[in-house]
Formats: sequence, C-alpha cells, structure tokens
Amino acid sequence: MTKLVTGIIQPHRLDDVKSALEAFGVRGMTVSEASGYGRQRGHTEVYRGAEYTVDLVPKVRIEVLVADEDAASVTKVIVGAAQTGKIGDGKVWVVPVEDVARVRTGEHGIDAL
Amino acid sequence: MTKLVTGIIQPHRLDDVKSALEAFGVRGMTVSEASGYGRQRGHTEVYRGAEYTVDLVPKVRIEVLVADEDAASVTKVIVGAAQTGKIGDGKVWVVPVEDVARVRTGEHGIDAL
Amino acid sequence: MTKLVTGIIQPHRLDDVKSALEAFGVRGMTVSEASGYGRQRGHTEVYRGAEYTVDLVPKVRIEVLVADEDAASVTKVIVGAAQTGKIGDGKVWVVPVEDVARVRTGEHGIDAL
Ligand SMILES: Nc1ncnc2c1ncn2[C@@H]1O[C@H](COP(=O)(O)OP(=O)(O)OP(=O)(O)O)[C@@H](O)[C@H]1O
Ligand SMILES: Nc1ncnc2c1ncn2[C@@H]1O[C@H](COP(=O)(O)OP(=O)(O)OP(=O)(O)O)[C@@H](O)[C@H]1O
Ligand SMILES: Nc1ncnc2c1ncn2[C@@H]1O[C@H](COP(=O)(O)OP(=O)(O)OP(=O)(O)O)[C@@H](O)[C@H]1O
Ligand SMILES: [Mg+2]
Ligand SMILES: [Mg+2]
Ligand SMILES: [Mg+2]
Repeated sequence: MTKLVTGIIQPHRLDDVKSALEAFGVRGMTVSEASGYGRQRGHTEVYRGAEYTVDLVPKVRIEVLVADEDAASVTKVIVGAAQTGKIGDGKVWVVPVEDVARVRTGEHGIDAL
Repeated sequence: MTKLVTGIIQPHRLDDVKSALEAFGVRGMTVSEASGYGRQRGHTEVYRGAEYTVDLVPKVRIEVLVADEDAASVTKVIVGAAQTGKIGDGKVWVVPVEDVARVRTGEHGIDAL
Repeated sequence: MTKLVTGIIQPHRLDDVKSALEAFGVRGMTVSEASGYGRQRGHTEVYRGAEYTVDLVPKVRIEVLVADEDAASVTKVIVGAAQTGKIGDGKVWVVPVEDVARVRTGEHGIDAL
C-alpha cells in the first residue's frame, strides 16, 4: 500500500532533490541530519572545503512516504537529482510500510499521505 | 512479532505524546530532531512565533518498538496526543521489524522490548 | 535481499561498534543523534558525568544496510561491541529492505551496498 523511501545524500544536493521530488508530485517529506561513509574508507570526501578521511562525513537524510506504485520512480528521482558522479553521492532504499495516519484528521492509508 | 511505529509530530506536543505513551504502557522510545512539510506547500506553519512557508518546519520524530498487537493502539495514542487540529500536526507510520535485541542482555524478540 | 540493521547505543560505544563492524566487513554505515529511554523509567542513567532520570538520555543511532544473510551477524556484532552490562546499553532491530540504489552509479540491489 505504502512505502518509505529513504535517501542519504550530500547536503549540497538537498535543494535540487527537494525540487525534483516536488516536480514529481510528492506530497511531503522529512529531512534530518546524519553522517556516514560508504565503501572507500581509505579515500577522502570533501565537504565545505574540508577533507574527511576514513570517518563520518556529514550527509542529509530525506524520507518520503509514497504509494507503492511510486516507490521506484521516487527512488529514481532522488538518484537522478542527487548524483554528481563523485564518491559519497549517497544511497537510497525502500522499506515496506503497513499503515500511515495523518495526525490532524486521523485518516489512514493512501488518503493519509 | 514486532513493529516500529514512527511519528513525526509538532515539537510542542512531545511531552503530551510521551505521557500518553507511558500511560498506555510502552516500555521505551527513541526521540530525534527532524524537519519537513506535508501537503500545504503554499500555506504557512507557525513554530515558536516564526512563520515557515513552503519550506522545512522543525518537527520531532518519535519511534516506538512494540509487539505486533499493539501497533494499531500505539498509532492511535500518538495521533490522539499529537492532534491540535492545525495543519502540520504530523504523520505516523508502521514498519515491520524482523528481529529486536536488547544490548545489555543479548535477549531477542518480545523479551527484548 | 537486503536488510537495514538499526542500533541505538550509548554514545561512548560508537568507536568500538564502528571498529567491530569494519572488522566484520560492512561496507558503510550511517550515524545520527537521538535520545531515548528504555524500561527503567524510575532509575537513572549516567551520561558524561550527568545523571538522567525518567527522561531522554542522549544516544547514538547506527544504521547498516546489509545482505539478508549478514543481518543476524551484524546484529550480534553491534550487541557485542556496544555491551557494557549497564542499563541503557541499547537496542538493535532489523527491518526488511525491498530495494537499494547507489546514487553515483545508479546500481541496484546487492551491488549497490
Ligand atoms: N551499507 C550502508 N549502510 C548504511 N548506510 C550506508 C551504507 N553505505 C553508505 N551509506 C550511507 O550513504 C552515504 C553515502 O555513501 P556512499 O555514496 O559513499 O556509498 P558508496 O557505496 O561508497 O558509493 P560511492 O562508491 O559512490 O562512494 C554514507 O555516508 C552513509 O551515510
Ligand atoms: N509524504 C511524506 N513523507 C514523509 N514525511 C512526511 C510526508 N508528509 C508529511 N511528512 C512529515 O510529517 C510532517 C507533518 O506533515 P503534515 O501534518 O503537514 O502532513 P499533511 O498531510 O500535510 O497533513 P495536514 O493537512 O494536517 O497538514 C511533515 O513536516 C513531514 O516531516
Ligand atoms: N521500545 C522501544 N522503542 C524504541 N526505542 C527504544 C525502546 N526501548 C529502548 N529504546 C531505545 O534504546 C535506548 C536504550 O534502551 P535500553 O538499553 O535502556 O533498553 P532496555 O530494554 O531498558 O534495556 P536495559 O534493561 O539494559 O536498560 C533507549 O534510550 C531508546 O532510545
Ligand atoms: Mg563511498
Ligand atoms: Mg501539512
Ligand atoms: Mg533501560
């Protein structure tokens, strides 16, 4: 019924990813701070002019609740808008959601998105 | 066996949501900072006297690991305690959990909650 | 295919947990700040010399995307490295992941880890 698409992206890509998601038509999103690293622990990543080696590089987490049939497209939209071609560009994953509720109205399911 | 109930709520509702969850009997929770927006991108939301338009409004994330049979009730408790009737009240969703472990004891499953 | 293993641990165990995960061979991880409490609401937990009672104690969240067959081992690695034997040691849980993408290359699935 619903999926949660989570992206860990480079912070300077957030505005473009937001715009691309809005252009696609998502109805909301949640953003938070994180840090991390991927496969190149010996290499460095640059963030705001500073080099980060081996350790935790600042990233942004974006989460989007979507209808089942939009999960693959929303994943693609995030990948497309976050991509710079440099290492550390990010990761996107999809998790099943069994129920969603909208707090203001108490609605559930697709209508709660 | 277990579910993870996640709520994104207005920060000023956190105390009431915590109390309601404790009154229900949940055994623990995780809280973190987030920001986001829902369906009214043209409208404004007010947070600490400041108006946020179009963009990311501060929210709080609450996560509660619960037994399967409590997921719907815990969702309802969060919705009930977070609700003010204003736009931006929040979203609650439920994700399946395949295993839980309690670090101190190494217990798994329901006993680990 | 893939799982997301999430651990909420004591902040002072992060370095050891990271090292243990690297020794196991995980390819990346995401770290963020959180706070929370578990079953002993009347008791206290100590963090940086300060005592926290009843309320939200600072914790660290670690998330690791892994191949299905590694989820149990990675859970065990986090439990083992985070464990001090004191209350508040933490919680680890496993959630199913339906798709993963690597932003730089657009790869999906196991190859995207
Ligand atoms: N296995 C993983 N588990 C959890 N989070 C991960 C994992 N791998 C990467 N991440 C998160 O995604 C962020 C970006 O990872 P990154 O793009 O470096 O992945 P990668 O596979 O090394 O790809 P690339 O080769 O393009 O660098 C990391 O900083 C981390 O927060
Ligand atoms: N589709 C979504 N995906 C992920 N997070 C969302 C989504 N929609 C809302 N959120 C999160 O929930 C928070 C509250 O959303 P909000 O209550 O405004 O939802 P809504 O559907 O617009 O409801 P309302 O009409 O009552 O405002 C947002 O700030 C955001 O963090
Ligand atoms: N039911 C729960 N739902 C969500 N998060 C939880 C839950 N229980 C604990 N946590 C998170 O895990 C952290 C550590 O919990 P804690 O180790 O105190 O669990 P516990 O079951 O009380 O174990 P212990 O008896 O060893 O203290 C908490 O601060 C909170 O962030
Ligand atoms: Mg990398
Ligand atoms: Mg809204
Ligand atoms: Mg405890």
